[in-house]
Formats: sequence, structure tokens, C-alpha cells
Amino acid sequence: MHSKQLGRRRFLKEGAAIAGLTAGAIRSASGQGQTLGSATAEARPQDSRAYGERSRFLNSVRTLDRTGQVTPLQDLMGIITPSALHFVQSRGYDPPDIDPRQHRLLIHGMVDRPLVFTLEELKRFPSVSRILFLECPGNTGKTALEDGAATVQQTHGKTSCSEWTGVPVSLLLQEAGVQAGAYWLVAEGAEKGNRAQSVPLEKAMDDALVAYGQNGEPLRPEQGFPIRLLLPGCTGGVNTKWLRRIKVLEQPELGIWDLQQGNAIRVSPDGKGGRLPTMPPKSVITFPSGGQRLPGRGFYEITGLAWSGRGTIRRVEVSTDGGQIWKDAQLQDPVLPMAHTRFRFPWNWNGEEAVIQSRCTDEQGEVQPTLAELSQRRGIRPGSLQSDWVADSYARLGLNAVQPWKVTREGSVSNAMF
Amino acid sequence: MHSKQLGRRRFLKEGAAIAGLTAGAIRSASGQGQTLGSATAEARPQDSRAYGERSRFLNSVRTLDRTGQVTPLQDLMGIITPSALHFVQSRGYDPPDIDPRQHRLLIHGMVDRPLVFTLEELKRFPSVSRILFLECPGNTGKTALEDGAATVQQTHGKTSCSEWTGVPVSLLLQEAGVQAGAYWLVAEGAEKGNRAQSVPLEKAMDDALVAYGQNGEPLRPEQGFPIRLLLPGCTGGVNTKWLRRIKVLEQPELGIWDLQQGNAIRVSPDGKGGRLPTMPPKSVITFPSGGQRLPGRGFYEITGLAWSGRGTIRRVEVSTDGGQIWKDAQLQDPVLPMAHTRFRFPWNWNGEEAVIQSRCTDEQGEVQPTLAELSQRRGIRPGSLQSDWVADSYARLGLNAVQPWKVTREGSVSNAMF
Repeated sequence: MHSKQLGRRRFLKEGAAIAGLTAGAIRSASGQGQTLGSATAEARPQDSRAYGERSRFLNSVRTLDRTGQVTPLQDLMGIITPSALHFVQSRGYDPPDIDPRQHRLLIHGMVDRPLVFTLEELKRFPSVSRILFLECPGNTGKTALEDGAATVQQTHGKTSCSEWTGVPVSLLLQEAGVQAGAYWLVAEGAEKGNRAQSVPLEKAMDDALVAYGQNGEPLRPEQGFPIRLLLPGCTGGVNTKWLRRIKVLEQPELGIWDLQQGNAIRVSPDGKGGRLPTMPPKSVITFPSGGQRLPGRGFYEITGLAWSGRGTIRRVEVSTDGGQIWKDAQLQDPVLPMAHTRFRFPWNWNGEEAVIQSRCTDEQGEVQPTLAELSQRRGIRPGSLQSDWVADSYARLGLNAVQPWKVTREGSVSNAMF
Repeated sequence: MHSKQLGRRRFLKEGAAIAGLTAGAIRSASGQGQTLGSATAEARPQDSRAYGERSRFLNSVRTLDRTGQVTPLQDLMGIITPSALHFVQSRGYDPPDIDPRQHRLLIHGMVDRPLVFTLEELKRFPSVSRILFLECPGNTGKTALEDGAATVQQTHGKTSCSEWTGVPVSLLLQEAGVQAGAYWLVAEGAEKGNRAQSVPLEKAMDDALVAYGQNGEPLRPEQGFPIRLLLPGCTGGVNTKWLRRIKVLEQPELGIWDLQQGNAIRVSPDGKGGRLPTMPPKSVITFPSGGQRLPGRGFYEITGLAWSGRGTIRRVEVSTDGGQIWKDAQLQDPVLPMAHTRFRFPWNWNGEEAVIQSRCTDEQGEVQPTLAELSQRRGIRPGSLQSDWVADSYARLGLNAVQPWKVTREGSVSNAMF
């Protein structure tokens, strides 16, 4: 890892592309250089022509569960989640009310040059845009199981997908000059409590972003405005929001968050490496799904979403007979790594009771298991919904079971997981 | 064209995929079948947790020009335009306030089975999602030239890019059964005045959509809620909003709109075919752009957008020396046909006066010309900004000239087109 990192640093120095910027960064940290980019002000115009609103006839909303607001997947189309409907794992707190002109990112610790960046300085770096999902590790876990979730919003609503824009963390670290012997960083948020997240330097140098854009505009406050860490494919909780500090270290600083179920880090025996948890391949039918009603027999397009924290979705299969026959669904382009992928499957419903479900396969070849397969694999007796089983599933992030929906003869759709 | 169309119809009949739906469509037109999909209501919740809002520190907005609201391209990131900032060619009118439960789409004229669809019935058909730009043919035309546009919002702000979802028009027409001898359709909107648009059947059968989704949620009112026609690559004005009627015809019904500058149709001599105007390849640097200011010399990432109504962008070049040396910019994945494409180019500004500009090439090999090349090609004397020249450019849709921006030693950026 270290040689790769040095190699990249050399490349940038030789290229000298960023040479003029460091000085600028240091200058502007003392209050200059605030003239770039989009204007900000403390008042927001209320004119609906200036910043449009949806039709008054629409009322699709995030709903509350135990720990936050969940996305109405049953109402979404395509792969982009409207920013206004992105899930929020807030535990009921309002996001910090940050003035972007006052916000700073500090990079320090085992670096040659500690740096402080304003938002405008971060925007001067080469940038990247990627369509990526974010998913709470608790999605389809404890809450969905214990609370008897009825709808896809309740079972799977803690995943959302946006076009994110930001600066690669690797560029910022190269600018600061990571010292030999450093293997970790800690990312800290500006919210109350200042949650800190340990991240292996290898992952940070690979594809991590300090993101400032979401779906074409600045991040929404609930998603970390003005900047957040993005670690593609990893569990939602490790993507530090309201990022204000990155400290480079030899060893991780494991706090309560790093040890917690779902977001738990694996640290190598010598401490010089580690792995953040990633989300396994998952898919779910969003139409028809729990709580919806089909008006009568005939043609329907079954549609849903598939995603994997380990890369690109290669295949989605759909069964409409309780899992006996599986057929390939059509994947909607673009199919992108670590992004929601929309699938579609034509279905002529004959009016009889039916159980419909989807399963996906990602580029690693990992196939989404049924609940029975998942239970068997773990040596836990299937079919019982015991709290220790739930806690175990949740802790291991493994609850990516196939989600069956039952369609009755009357056309009503309900959760057939148990 | 006709045999292709019949061929498709046969395919669908043989596949019988849609067989059950027609009856449903007819049933529901009489008021049944309203139980599908997302709930609608006349009241909208105002809870910002239920439907999120942007930070109170942000004030990027659409601004007014002579004919509508233009998108703040200088503030956008990536390729998705937030729906709230999509340009609107409204001429000052508010969009119609349509209750989606009451809205109907009528398909009639030269068809075997006239059909009426509710929104929910349209959603039962196989659907498609595509990231596509829409651009007003007047973009970079009359207003930009005559009003002495200073910013990229004013010069190029009548283009936006969304992920659209809808049903292929071909499926609806096949369901209705297009009769022999039909070569055109007329699409009519539900707004005041009921603007009608003639469309060659060949284009409609090829890739046209009746769209109901925009960036994951229903269309915004200004973009045609609840449904609009989408004709990928064509000039914005022909993409009928608030669509309520499609009439199949032998000959086009040319109204004032079809003859107007910018949206003018070409009809073949025998009337049995024609072509809608498409947008030529265009690109523009959005940062640094007119009205912005660079705080000092050093590294900057030049970035912008490129798009073509004739397919995929293959190449974008950037010059930082007034057009003498051109170098390839990096194209951000995904690069999609008839979509905005984000490009990036690293630049070390030495603090001297500079003229920066971009030019693109699309998959047809068409290269965006400079204004001088464009003028010469048309045999019109360059450099003079005469109203007849402007009117001609506008009418021919050709004003896709390279847009130069001048950066002064003080770092201020201004329009260097003339």
C-alpha cells in the first residue's frame, strides 16, 4: 500500500498540477479567496419560479422509523433518488446549521504540511462525479424485522442513490504529504458529539471523496452540507457527514461507532491495515410491493432496484411462482458500480395468488440468498424470528435476503418474508 | 417505415405481453383502476423532514429572461440538473394546475382502437428511464446575443438534463393499432391554448416517450406534470408538455408553432415523412465563466458541459490561449447519448490575460465551430451583430458557436464572444 501511495504522490508532484494551490489554500484559510463559485447568502428566495416545487397533488414523503426517515422506494422511478427524499439516519436530531463560508476542513496528524481548506479551495481541486448508492447497514435489518414492516419503504427504505461530486481524498492527502508509517485516518464531523470514523488509508487513497455536490447542487443539510466523506460501497454510517477534520495516524482510533453493530471495522493483527464493512448484493421489487393493490389481472411491469457495495450488478432474476422458476430481468442502462440499478420484468398476472421476488448477482459472483439459505449458511434455525437471530444478522450485515411479496386473488400485496 | 411499424406491432401481438392491458385501459377510462402507484392528495405536507429542503445559505436560482427562466449552469455539478432549477420556457405563464387523477391521454385518428388512458394505466406499460438533455432552440441565440449576455446562465441556461422515465410511444400506438397510410401524429397539450405539435410517425415509433418521471419523482409542473412527450435530441419546443391527446394522421397539421423559427419541421415533398429539428453539438465552459472571479494565479480545474441532439459526445477539447492550441479534456463517465456530458481540464493559470474556450465533437463527427467559422460557412459577414444575422442564426438553430471567456489579470471573467 505504501509504495502505491508514494507513487501517486510523486506523480502529482511531477505533474505539478496542484503546485500553485497549496499556497492558495494556506492563504485563504486566513480569510481570503472567498470569491469563487456560487453565491451564498443567508436569505433564500421563496419564489417558486426561481427554485421550483413539485405539484400540490403529490405527497410522497419520507416516513419515520425508530432511527430516522426512510425513502419511499415504491414511488421512485429510474435510479436517482430525489435529494428531498434521500433517507436520513438522524435519530431525530436536526442537522447542524452550517454557514459554508465559515466551514473549514483541517488535515493534520502524520502529514508533512497540515492544511486548512475552505469550501471554495476544495472546489479548486480536480473533481469527480459518480452515481453511488448509500445504504444504512440497518436497512432490511432490525427495524424491518422486529417491527413487522409491511411496505418496501419500511423493509428497504434506508438506501438511496445520488450523483455525488467531490474531490478525491487522495489528492488532499498528497497535498498534505502523508508520512511514512501512517496507515489510518480519522474523519470527524461537525455535528453535536463530533462523531469520528477510522478509515484505512488504503481505502481513502483508492476511491474516497470529500463530496460537496449531490444531484447537481450542493449537499442537502441532512446529507452533510457543506461537505461529507464518501466511501463507495461501504455501509452508510462510515461516510462521515459535516466533515471538518481528517487526522492521519499509524493506528485506528476506535470509538463506540467503530465497534458498533453494522459499521464494525476489521483491523489487521499488526494494525497496519483494515477493512470497512461493505454492503452485500441486494435487490427488491418496488412494484408491486407491500401495501399496493393491483386493480385486476393482466399485464404488469414488475420493477425494482438492485445494488452491491462490492461492484456492478451483473444479473437480476425474478420469480413469480414462489421461487421455483427464475427468469432474467432486463437491466436499465446505465448499470454502474456501487449504484442502484433499475430492473424490469414483464408479467401477465392470471389473477391467482402469487409470490413474486427478485435476486441479484454482482460482479464478484455473489448471489443474493433466500432467507432460508442465509439461515442455513449461518447455522441458525430458519423461520424463527428471535431477537438474538435478528441482532446477529444485523451485526453481520448479512440480511440481504431475497424479499418475497405475496399477491392475493384480490390483488392486495403483502410482505411474505415470514 | 411502414413495414417496420407493422413488424413491431406483430411482435407485440405475438408476444401477447400487453394483451391484458387494453381491456384494462378501456375499463379504467370509465373511472376504475385508480388504486395503483403512489398516493396523491390535494394537501402537501410541509414538514421539511418528510420532504427535505436545501440549506438556508444557498440561493442559486433560475433567473428570468425574455421568455422564461434559465438554469444557473455555473452552479451545477455533474450532469443532473436539479428539477427545481430546470429551465422553463414559459413566457411568464404559470403551468396548468392538473389533478393527475383527472388527467387523461386520448389516442385517436387513424387507429383501429381509439384509447383513453389514465396516468395509472400508462404506468402499467413497460417503461424506460433515460438521462436526456432538453434544450430550447433559442438557447445561445437571440436573447443571448441581443441582450449582451454576461454569464453562462444567460448565454447557455436554456439547457437542462434529467433522468426521465416513461412509456415508449411505440407501445401505445401499437396498442391502438396504427392504420395503413398514417405517417404523422399531432401531440396536444392541456395548457391554455392547447399547443399542438406535429411529429413524424417514424420518430415517434423510434425512441419517443410519454414521460411521467423526472429525476426519480413525477414531472415538475413546469416540465409538463403529469405527462409530457419526449423526443430525444429534438429542440425543446417540440416535446409537448401536459400531453392530453395524440392524433394519428396521414399529413402533418402545421400550426404556427411548427413554422416558427427554431422548432420548424421539414416535411418531405409527398408529405409521407419529415424531420424534426435536432440540436447540434454544443459545449460550454461553466467554470470559470462570465461574472466569476479567480482569486489568484495557480491551479484551477476548468469544467463544463457538452451535448448533442445527434448522439453521444466523443471528444471535448479546451484551449486556454485564445484558440491556438487545443488539448483533450477528460469526459466524466457515464457519457450517454443525447445527455449532458461533464468535461474537466486541469489548468495552471499564470496570472496573465487568457481566453479560454471548449469545442466538442459528437458521434456523427460534427465539430462545434467557432463563430467565425459559422459565419463564413453561412456566407454572412462575421463580427457584426446585426438583427437579421441573429434572426437567421436562430431560425437555423445553428448558433452552436464555441463560447470564449476572457480572464483578465485581475482574475475577472467576461464574455469574449464579440
